[in-house]
Amino acid sequence: MTHHADYARQTAERARAASRQLMSVSGAMKQRWLHTAADALVARTAEIVSRNEQDVARAPEFGLTSAAIDRLRLTPARIAEIAEALRDVAALPDPVGESIEGYSRPNGLRVQKVRVPLGVVFFIYESRPNVTADAAALCVKSGNAVILRGGKEALHSNVALYRILKDTLIETGLPEHAVQLVATPDREVVGEMLKLRGLIDVTIPRGGKSLIERVAAEATMPVIKHFDGICHVYVDAAANLEMALEILKNSKCQRTGVCNAAECVLIHAAVADRFLPMMSAMFATEKIEVRGCVQTCAAIPWAKSATDDDYRTEYLDKIISSRIVDSIDDAINHIAQYGSQHTDTIVTNDLRAAERFVALVDSSAVMVNASTRFNDGGELGLGAEIGISTDKFHARGPCGLRELTSYKWIVRGDGQVRE
Amino acid sequence: MTHHADYARQTAERARAASRQLMSVSGAMKQRWLHTAADALVARTAEIVSRNEQDVARAPEFGLTSAAIDRLRLTPARIAEIAEALRDVAALPDPVGESIEGYSRPNGLRVQKVRVPLGVVFFIYESRPNVTADAAALCVKSGNAVILRGGKEALHSNVALYRILKDTLIETGLPEHAVQLVATPDREVVGEMLKLRGLIDVTIPRGGKSLIERVAAEATMPVIKHFDGICHVYVDAAANLEMALEILKNSKCQRTGVCNAAECVLIHAAVADRFLPMMSAMFATEKIEVRGCVQTCAAIPWAKSATDDDYRTEYLDKIISSRIVDSIDDAINHIAQYGSQHTDTIVTNDLRAAERFVALVDSSAVMVNASTRFNDGGELGLGAEIGISTDKFHARGPCGLRELTSYKWIVRGDGQVRE
Repeated sequence: MTHHADYARQTAERARAASRQLMSVSGAMKQRWLHTAADALVARTAEIVSRNEQDVARAPEFGLTSAAIDRLRLTPARIAEIAEALRDVAALPDPVGESIEGYSRPNGLRVQKVRVPLGVVFFIYESRPNVTADAAALCVKSGNAVILRGGKEALHSNVALYRILKDTLIETGLPEHAVQLVATPDREVVGEMLKLRGLIDVTIPRGGKSLIERVAAEATMPVIKHFDGICHVYVDAAANLEMALEILKNSKCQRTGVCNAAECVLIHAAVADRFLPMMSAMFATEKIEVRGCVQTCAAIPWAKSATDDDYRTEYLDKIISSRIVDSIDDAINHIAQYGSQHTDTIVTNDLRAAERFVALVDSSAVMVNASTRFNDGGELGLGAEIGISTDKFHARGPCGLRELTSYKWIVRGDGQVRE
Repeated sequence: MTHHADYARQTAERARAASRQLMSVSGAMKQRWLHTAADALVARTAEIVSRNEQDVARAPEFGLTSAAIDRLRLTPARIAEIAEALRDVAALPDPVGESIEGYSRPNGLRVQKVRVPLGVVFFIYESRPNVTADAAALCVKSGNAVILRGGKEALHSNVALYRILKDTLIETGLPEHAVQLVATPDREVVGEMLKLRGLIDVTIPRGGKSLIERVAAEATMPVIKHFDGICHVYVDAAANLEMALEILKNSKCQRTGVCNAAECVLIHAAVADRFLPMMSAMFATEKIEVRGCVQTCAAIPWAKSATDDDYRTEYLDKIISSRIVDSIDDAINHIAQYGSQHTDTIVTNDLRAAERFVALVDSSAVMVNASTRFNDGGELGLGAEIGISTDKFHARGPCGLRELTSYKWIVRGDGQVRE
């Protein structure tokens, strides 16, 4: 075994042992850890800031933009927010032990499906150091041990945060290895981790598409992920066009670099003449580039021509593709062909159109008269999320505490045997 | 592309198209198909029997035992049972469209998690032809298109059953390719199918361990499976020993070749002196070979010595391993080390022991005072099952209609945008 393989296996075995210990840790103990860790983060702000300054100083070496450097920076105010997020997770209901269903069988057996932790989570993420604390909180609250692998740009900040999480785990009597950080910058370690089916139950990559593709290709265990967020806003023939404009603006412009931002607008031909000038004015003001079909370009002189590739592209930028469709079914077919099953919304006042869209669009979240930006754990009431999944297996859409659990069947009898 | 790759892709693409068509098929239509197919199976009994006779005639070529040949044989009575099973599936509640949860958000958004089909199921199974009809019924009832790949021993029988399923799909207006059968005997086709992530949503292998290992290693999409059923009966210090004996007998002897049969008995040292003679007499009568620890062998002179490998073995035969443990925690640790997270039962009257066992044994089903044989879709009230999963992802334990579904989020608003 190589050095990296050794390191990965030992880390995963410690996590596995911690996950077994977590099976007998009460919800109250987990809450106490989260509050103690939150207090310690605030108390040790100076230590975090000083380590974070090392990352910020090195950031130009990694080619970070000034916006990215700003996201990397930890101020006392931001550290207080991270601490507050831990207290929020503490306040969420404990998913472990939840009875999902329960009933009695004719022979007197009492059957229950009860929520249990997945076991060991390997979480790979890029850049922002607040994710370190969020992910640790969500995983441990849901009874899982977590192995964290952050980006090299945030290494010193992550180490500082991790030390506080670890110190407080020990202080509050939780397993020390319930949270571990892979602090070596070598990429080979990730490859070795991804081989460890049986020790690691799930890998969650959060970051750019190339990271996620690499993880999906190499992982021998299940992966919770989304590759792309090619989200659509469909403006139906029966749309309230003012509402459509607000929803489109929010979906596209509120934040362009996120997975639930709209990348394509589909407009029913019956309202195109009226809607395109409204959209043109709005996107001109918002400085969004439009890449459109022939009809879009005819109405918006400054729009560029869209290629087939445009409709398949997650821009994550101030660009949107636009296409006029002849019917709701054309819109649904366009979404099936070009979409990524992430988030799609219809704007309409026609009940049948809404029901048809909801039934036939097979995306993790399908919206009616609401912004695509609502496909988010906080917005949908999950409290917090570790990511958004476009997989159909296990967890789909925003993944909070419950999505980090599995279940087991518990069957209680008084001597029943099978006939 | 090879011929096999072409064939696999075309089959999967037809299934994918059928699965999209199934999105707008009502529950009533699916029920009508199941009843029509059941009637047709009975009406066309002669055709099935004649094709089945070809398989039975060829069976010795494949080295089938007489017991296996008996399981292969289709009589009019067995065909009537297969038809009845389809009617049973028709009577089960339709899982598609079930609202799993629903609530309103403070901003007025109405959020719903609704059950949807997985899409395309690739089902690989061995021997018994009744599984062909069962699997097709479960998959289509849950809104999925299915690609069936049965064993070569049952090829003619499967073709006969498949034709009837297909004819009735067409007759009742369902998509013709909702059910397809891979009738070529070449194994390469399976390998090509397993590459088709994106077209096939889940593969379910049911058969011997080598089949399942091959599928798990090669599949690029999620797999629902169990490798082993190394199930334990733990006789606690506080067990009713008569009850323990009945449960052990049922768990081990009722059927030895099934995954939920017991393969190991763990006996608390405090009751070993009394229980071992009872167990010895029972297993002697039942002609079960015992492979035991030193203490087991001291009490049962005809028992053989168990090796470490015995505790890791799924015998699927008239053999059981036996070990005396000093405490319930020793039993729990033994199960964690040697078990396969399938089914484990404790026999006890001590509430704390039962609760500890249930909390710390991490198996798909954990039983208290009941036979391991109850980990079964029919017995737990799911109506029917396509298999039992020891995975933690998506589906754990018996997999019925609901376990063949995923969900999507539906969010309805009246113009909400994100702040």
